[in-house]
Amino acid sequence: MTDWECINRIRVLSADVVQKANSGHPGAPLGMAPMAYVLFSRHLRFNPKNPDWPGRDRFVLSNGHSSALLYSLLHLTGYPDWTMDVLKTFRQSKSMAAGHPESHYPGVEVTTGPLGQGLSNAVGLAIAETHLAAKFNKDGIKVVDNFTYVFCGDGCLQEGITSEASSLAGHLGLGKLIVLYDDNHITIDGSTDLSFSEDVCKRYESYGWHTQVVKDGDKDLEAIDAAITAAKAVSDKPSLIKVNTTIGFGSLMAGTGEVHGSPLGVKGVAHLKTFFGYDPNEFFHIPDEVYKVMDGTKKGKELEDEWNSSFAVFTDKYPNEATELKRRFSGTLPEGWDQNLPTFSEKDPAISTRKASGQILNHFASKIPDLFGGSADLNPSCFTYLNSDKDYLVGSYDQRNVRFGVREHAMAAICNGLHAYGGFIPFCSTFLNFIGYAYGAVILSSLSEVGVLYIFTHDSVLLAEDGPTHQPIEKYAVVRSTPGINLFRPADSKETLAAYLSAIRSRKTPTVFALTRQNVPNLAGTSVEGALRGGYVVNDPQGASPDIVLVATGSELSLCVGAASRSSAKVRVVSLCCWELFEQQPLSYRESVFPSGVPVLSVEAGSAFGWERYAHASIAIDTHGMSANLADVTKAFGLTVENVLAKSQQVLDFYRERHVPNKLEKPF
Amino acid sequence: MTDWECINRIRVLSADVVQKANSGHPGAPLGMAPMAYVLFSRHLRFNPKNPDWPGRDRFVLSNGHSSALLYSLLHLTGYPDWTMDVLKTFRQSKSMAAGHPESHYPGVEVTTGPLGQGLSNAVGLAIAETHLAAKFNKDGIKVVDNFTYVFCGDGCLQEGITSEASSLAGHLGLGKLIVLYDDNHITIDGSTDLSFSEDVCKRYESYGWHTQVVKDGDKDLEAIDAAITAAKAVSDKPSLIKVNTTIGFGSLMAGTGEVHGSPLGVKGVAHLKTFFGYDPNEFFHIPDEVYKVMDGTKKGKELEDEWNSSFAVFTDKYPNEATELKRRFSGTLPEGWDQNLPTFSEKDPAISTRKASGQILNHFASKIPDLFGGSADLNPSCFTYLNSDKDYLVGSYDQRNVRFGVREHAMAAICNGLHAYGGFIPFCSTFLNFIGYAYGAVILSSLSEVGVLYIFTHDSVLLAEDGPTHQPIEKYAVVRSTPGINLFRPADSKETLAAYLSAIRSRKTPTVFALTRQNVPNLAGTSVEGALRGGYVVNDPQGASPDIVLVATGSELSLCVGAASRSSAKVRVVSLCCWELFEQQPLSYRESVFPSGVPVLSVEAGSAFGWERYAHASIAIDTHGMSANLADVTKAFGLTVENVLAKSQQVLDFYRERHVPNKLEKPF
Ligand SMILES: [Ca+2]
Ligand SMILES: [Ca+2]
Repeated sequence: MTDWECINRIRVLSADVVQKANSGHPGAPLGMAPMAYVLFSRHLRFNPKNPDWPGRDRFVLSNGHSSALLYSLLHLTGYPDWTMDVLKTFRQSKSMAAGHPESHYPGVEVTTGPLGQGLSNAVGLAIAETHLAAKFNKDGIKVVDNFTYVFCGDGCLQEGITSEASSLAGHLGLGKLIVLYDDNHITIDGSTDLSFSEDVCKRYESYGWHTQVVKDGDKDLEAIDAAITAAKAVSDKPSLIKVNTTIGFGSLMAGTGEVHGSPLGVKGVAHLKTFFGYDPNEFFHIPDEVYKVMDGTKKGKELEDEWNSSFAVFTDKYPNEATELKRRFSGTLPEGWDQNLPTFSEKDPAISTRKASGQILNHFASKIPDLFGGSADLNPSCFTYLNSDKDYLVGSYDQRNVRFGVREHAMAAICNGLHAYGGFIPFCSTFLNFIGYAYGAVILSSLSEVGVLYIFTHDSVLLAEDGPTHQPIEKYAVVRSTPGINLFRPADSKETLAAYLSAIRSRKTPTVFALTRQNVPNLAGTSVEGALRGGYVVNDPQGASPDIVLVATGSELSLCVGAASRSSAKVRVVSLCCWELFEQQPLSYRESVFPSGVPVLSVEAGSAFGWERYAHASIAIDTHGMSANLADVTKAFGLTVENVLAKSQQVLDFYRERHVPNKLEKPF
Repeated sequence: MTDWECINRIRVLSADVVQKANSGHPGAPLGMAPMAYVLFSRHLRFNPKNPDWPGRDRFVLSNGHSSALLYSLLHLTGYPDWTMDVLKTFRQSKSMAAGHPESHYPGVEVTTGPLGQGLSNAVGLAIAETHLAAKFNKDGIKVVDNFTYVFCGDGCLQEGITSEASSLAGHLGLGKLIVLYDDNHITIDGSTDLSFSEDVCKRYESYGWHTQVVKDGDKDLEAIDAAITAAKAVSDKPSLIKVNTTIGFGSLMAGTGEVHGSPLGVKGVAHLKTFFGYDPNEFFHIPDEVYKVMDGTKKGKELEDEWNSSFAVFTDKYPNEATELKRRFSGTLPEGWDQNLPTFSEKDPAISTRKASGQILNHFASKIPDLFGGSADLNPSCFTYLNSDKDYLVGSYDQRNVRFGVREHAMAAICNGLHAYGGFIPFCSTFLNFIGYAYGAVILSSLSEVGVLYIFTHDSVLLAEDGPTHQPIEKYAVVRSTPGINLFRPADSKETLAAYLSAIRSRKTPTVFALTRQNVPNLAGTSVEGALRGGYVVNDPQGASPDIVLVATGSELSLCVGAASRSSAKVRVVSLCCWELFEQQPLSYRESVFPSGVPVLSVEAGSAFGWERYAHASIAIDTHGMSANLADVTKAFGLTVENVLAKSQQVLDFYRERHVPNKLEKPF
């Protein structure tokens, strides 16, 4: 019974898994099995019987297409849910063994597959650890103390998001982050010579990382082991270990691109088994001895018991802190967090919603220590700095303001990682238009049900002079059309408060805030309660049913209120600040907001796309923006009370003799 | 009259420009004026009287917020359109002096502002030069021979897109790309110590770049000059020159973050002028001698004359090549490019549209040498390899297949740069869902009117096993809602051909292709002509007006055709393969496709968002996807003939006693 027996069994099991599905990626599991075995059997601290044990090391498979490897490891090390039967359902409907690892299944820390996300999530996991350690560890009692390990391939390293996250990780000196780079010289297209010839170690050194090379990752287990040990000993820098391997090791197509993304085939798997001295007619076969060696249950229990003892000592000495840390890991909010809310009234002076947001964020940050984040080098513009805290930097990991730098994509992925660690409500900010840079990771917040607060400002053409490169047009439609994510575009301070209440409560749903650069008045008709329903009546004609509904979001709501007050028609004004929340309301409520037979005109400084769901006509912007002063921009795009009045009249005239379609009434 | 007089005049002019607008970024222009002066007066080859002269060096201001510097230079060096009056309209309505540089104005090569785009565009510009040089230069006659210069700040260098593009530039050995990095140690938030401590030169060396440092970029003009000279002499590597400068040099807030993005104020500008020994009461004042020194007209004419002579010699020796190069720079397509098109019929076997795309792309590539591009390491999946050519690599710059590596964001930006050079129809490819990684640059294709072909495959949940991380849901809505970009989702080979015809003709509009992974039948009712109208009738009930319209795109069209053939109702089937083209058709045509009084059911394997524009009900997907085999995915999302039939019946029943709203009839 040797290490190699375990490693080769991991290999053939992964190959069986992929072959049975007739779909998947066998190449990387075959090449990475040795490093996976060394990590899981000699270093990684985990308890398969309690995958969520907070004291565990975190493991991220950034090259998520190698999922068969991860599932094989979870099975072999004793995770009860990862039965052999589950492995046999790889890539089939409702299987935990999904095509790429999905974080809602036990033992999978983060959802990976889109390259670079995992490594960037891992930077978030590592930041989380340092912060909680700095906050809670006392007197040498380390209740928070774990490593974050990452496997990645050259695909991950080519992605820009990885560069952003790695540069920041180096800057922040994340000494407990250890990345094993599977350097197999092969990409999907063929040799890395085609597109990737950089000196990866030198690049990581330039970021301030510690680097090592394992020359023969196919055969030299002790070198892998020694490198991990050395990496763990370097406490002030993240570590990169470049492990030279052979993709598809042991298979007929070893060392070629063909083995990356296609099953080996029946004959190929048979050859593989023969190569390792196994019976080609045995499938999904693992000898008992391999299970015995690889099962992490006993060691996992010991580790968790040890941690529990230490936590008990901590609880004795610091009962409040212990309760607080437990609360954070439980994901519940501190008691009273939504009591004594700030109040706003129409008598308050006009203020941009980005500034209101800054005040409200600071209010909640004082009540909720879980709030943690920052901006992509835009603090003076986005107002997301927490005044209670200083910068989260080397030497001040207990602080909550992260300086992400101009790294929007990594920023979002790091927030996903912070959430995955547990105990955090991550927020981040930039200009709304630059969600275009971060969108690859924002999608994953939604897919993996991570309630990040995306506090995005400069939300429309009304940011003015910076011009079309900075002016979002379609971004509201982008977020609204994306499943599992809310867009909140508040009209004033009250609605901004509602946005925060909604976002903080939505621990499984990310919220994108769209906040104004320019000042907006606090309106008499808005309310926190109304805004929390996503859409509500802000103004109604006195004692009469409306002739027309004006519906708006954000800064355009006050335009509609202004138009209503000047119109000779009976005008209802509706705020539709969050479509997703509104669409969760019962039909009866939605019909009470948009009554049958009354035409609806929408006013929003963005694409008309999607507004046909509610509106019979739209004041919208279906071109790119323009660089000009606010007054000229306002006029050029018809975002004036006069234009709202004129267009309202057109709507009223049009429907005078026509049937008004009921937009909420649908066949199914 | 010294160099410094010119430099300081550039400085105060930039400050006046920003101050008059009371908006903009004075800090970087003040710091970069010395390097700008040295580059423009001693190195950059350009003719202000013919900004589009093909032989010019390209200059890209990647930190586009420093636009005041660029506009000042264009004015001072003699670009006729860039008058002092234009400078006085900085950031005002319709001004060429827009907030960030926009490529449709003379002397502005590419639109910049969103950080990192410019440097990545420049990699495209440099690739373009090497390719045309390799293709056309003969016998030592260099009709294509120019440098590409870039200015950038630390913001650009923090962006992932820059890392992607720079790594690729090093790999490709782009020796005529020279980047001057304005290292002022300041970001918007303050010192770079907050977020950016990497060793930039070492990082660029790891990419295979040549690097230099100018220690005192505020004062040492000769060092700047020498560094540029040395960079030009290195012909096998791109060059990075790190120039240490002081942001806001000469201003009261020199060396601080405050001077980055706010005008200096009246007093601040007065102080600046006094600092440089100028009259604080003179505004927009440039002494004649400065104009005389800086005017590039004479030198520009000489350079262009020289190039013209050389081109004349070339024309004599190689008349065909000369004609061809002229054609390419003119942006016209080769004669007969759309003759002898491939034909497809319903008798052809089912084939995925990605495979059909591969055949069609290769067909057009044989007729249009301007087609140039590749995939983000997905050639075996995206089928965008040109069989006529080999890889574009060092030593084979004349080839057309670019191996972008797993670098989606840079890939798109490089395509924008290729187009900006002139003579190229760039294409690139990855899976549709990963437009989320590239979207920051895709937006700029649209904004700067660059007709890139985004040949994206794996266009829906029907890609199956790879699962939700790879399955686009909202991506159709994303592209449709974005102004100035077409989404083409062809149903079969004929419509795929139409997509290519449309995309190749649309030299100012980018096209996103959404192509299937799975096989789809070639349908009897589809046509190239119909598809080119964006929407058209594919099937109609014989001799009767329809009871219901089924509208679909892509792989769902054949479902609708199947349902129509099995329905007891009279069913019209409409393909809406490109909304944007359809919406350019006259209303009468659109009404002929969607006749008044007939209910419409849409069928598309993506978000319902936006479909209310045409459909009374939608079979759509408003959740994330799932990893499973094709049959299970198809069933789970109701993408079956049975479900289309059942839902059609629901629609017919619903509207039996109800008014059918005319979706095309609107108040305005
Ligand atoms: Ca949404
Ligand atoms: Ca569009």
